[in-house]
Amino acid sequence: LALSQAAQEWQDAAMKKLLLCAAALLVAMSLLAEDTAVPSPNEIVAAAPKPDWVAIPASDMLVMDLAPDTNGKPRRVVIQLMPPPFSQGWIGNVRKLAAVHWWDGLSVNRVQDNYVVQWGDANGEDKAKAKALPAGLVTMTEKDYLSDAIQYRMEPPNRVALGSDAYAKNNWFENGFPMAGDTVGMAWPVHCYGMVGVGRDMPPDTGSGAELYTVIGHAPRHLDRNIAVIGRVIAGIEHLSSLPRGTGTLGFYGTVAERVPIRSVRLGNDVPDLPAYQYLSTTSTSFARYADARANRRDAFFIRPAGGADICNIPVPVRRVKADG
Amino acid sequence: LALSQAAQEWQDAAMKKLLLCAAALLVAMSLLAEDTAVPSPNEIVAAAPKPDWVAIPASDMLVMDLAPDTNGKPRRVVIQLMPPPFSQGWIGNVRKLAAVHWWDGLSVNRVQDNYVVQWGDANGEDKAKAKALPAGLVTMTEKDYLSDAIQYRMEPPNRVALGSDAYAKNNWFENGFPMAGDTVGMAWPVHCYGMVGVGRDMPPDTGSGAELYTVIGHAPRHLDRNIAVIGRVIAGIEHLSSLPRGTGTLGFYGTVAERVPIRSVRLGNDVPDLPAYQYLSTTSTSFARYADARANRRDAFFIRPAGGADICNIPVPVRRVKADG
Repeated sequence: LALSQAAQEWQDAAMKKLLLCAAALLVAMSLLAEDTAVPSPNEIVAAAPKPDWVAIPASDMLVMDLAPDTNGKPRRVVIQLMPPPFSQGWIGNVRKLAAVHWWDGLSVNRVQDNYVVQWGDANGEDKAKAKALPAGLVTMTEKDYLSDAIQYRMEPPNRVALGSDAYAKNNWFENGFPMAGDTVGMAWPVHCYGMVGVGRDMPPDTGSGAELYTVIGHAPRHLDRNIAVIGRVIAGIEHLSSLPRGTGTLGFYGTVAERVPIRSVRLGNDVPDLPAYQYLSTTSTSFARYADARANRRDAFFIRPAGGADICNIPVPVRRVKADG
Repeated sequence: LALSQAAQEWQDAAMKKLLLCAAALLVAMSLLAEDTAVPSPNEIVAAAPKPDWVAIPASDMLVMDLAPDTNGKPRRVVIQLMPPPFSQGWIGNVRKLAAVHWWDGLSVNRVQDNYVVQWGDANGEDKAKAKALPAGLVTMTEKDYLSDAIQYRMEPPNRVALGSDAYAKNNWFENGFPMAGDTVGMAWPVHCYGMVGVGRDMPPDTGSGAELYTVIGHAPRHLDRNIAVIGRVIAGIEHLSSLPRGTGTLGFYGTVAERVPIRSVRLGNDVPDLPAYQYLSTTSTSFARYADARANRRDAFFIRPAGGADICNIPVPVRRVKADG
């Protein structure tokens, strides 16, 4: 079964290459064109031309306003909902819950260090006290954690693909989201920092979408394919990640006083003062250059480029823009 | 150059296996012995026998007391310094700085979300205002970010080894710390969540150890081999990770008022009320079982074990013990 030493080394080297031929070529060409200072990932993003940015529709954003902090400062968290084909049943439920203002008056109930912040109904598991859910929510199945509806291809120029890792045969970006997939065409969203998922009870429960969490630590990728991922925080994650850690089991707040009240959760198109947001197209040349620079830091601070990056160490850039774009 | 499809698939499958033969065998044997409920990683740790735990000498701990929080609660952070052969020059400096109480009265100056919390002299880069460093600190070189002094072996039973990833040919645990290494015998510590590193200026500066940071987000492994890692936070990281994020460049606090005062930093043997701490030996059977369970969650909540884990998703367990062990 053993591979030859040479074959193994070749395979290892190949794995560590972040970008495949055409995308890498584009990067190399642009580096040749500027033989002076090498830009940092952030500088590449800042210089990305307008066509490389994709507007996020207001109707695909979920806006959660927590109670102001102790200094009276507002705490707004903006979530981009995941585009089809992933998790659309849960996302439909989330839209319904936001439409009927279901979360208003509920709270953030759990903050576990290096893991998740979770919000919803603190009494959700107590049938006598739980807040009633609206009619019409759909029930999803465990099959729906994955999808075979996208025909992903590892070939450039339309993908920044990272090959295999401990969790998946393939890792790449799809419509601005980190994705993983196996060899038979099944794909699933990845639990990177800031991703938003659906809390649930023991299987076969899959959760309704009423109980949500976001990742505030090292990517807990063991949750991939075990829980639905419905989006990612694109603004205000610091209002969640800097909350006091809960001292109860699994980081739940032990007292009612510790819970952080939710003023409101609305879909973006119901929030008049919401700014416009854009993400850097994950099929753009700018994103390919950014991802390459994340994997091979050549800016002045670095002395040894890593030669690779895991998918969660390449966060997709998002920017806030004025209404005129 | 291309490998055969079969060879590639074998290699991919091999890569995803976390534990090698003997360690895996031990795990399988213990699983066969208990065919009822499968324990979670935490349950495995809780059941680990006394000989599997390694005492951390007080002299290898660095204890940072921040000013109490707004409710008057103490905020103590305990750091385990890294054992030889890694980063010992910087660690010697850190011991000297603690011995002369150099950090007392300084502050936490930077909190960048999903990245680092940094502390030291807020005026360190202003020669007119910087606090003088004690005499006798050594100057390290960029070569010292790595070491060829350990002869690491991937063979069981003495290593939980994770093979290659985007950042290194080999990843494993050494004396309770996550490690990476290349094919020519060089090894280096890994920037996982909670690891403590040495802030520095532009290369060839390597930092003295007076400016320290800890990781509070997804493992920034592009820093590996570019900055010295001197230890890891083993208690109280929540006092750093939950601090308000800085709004200045790179997450630096924009005002003096935002900085978090450091009351004192001492070596553990200078702190009379310090409890004893132990880590789970990374060559113990319990650790092998824990790591396997982290990579293949079989406890009731999970429906699809990942089949692997990256090294930073297997945090080394630490426990606080009474003086009698």
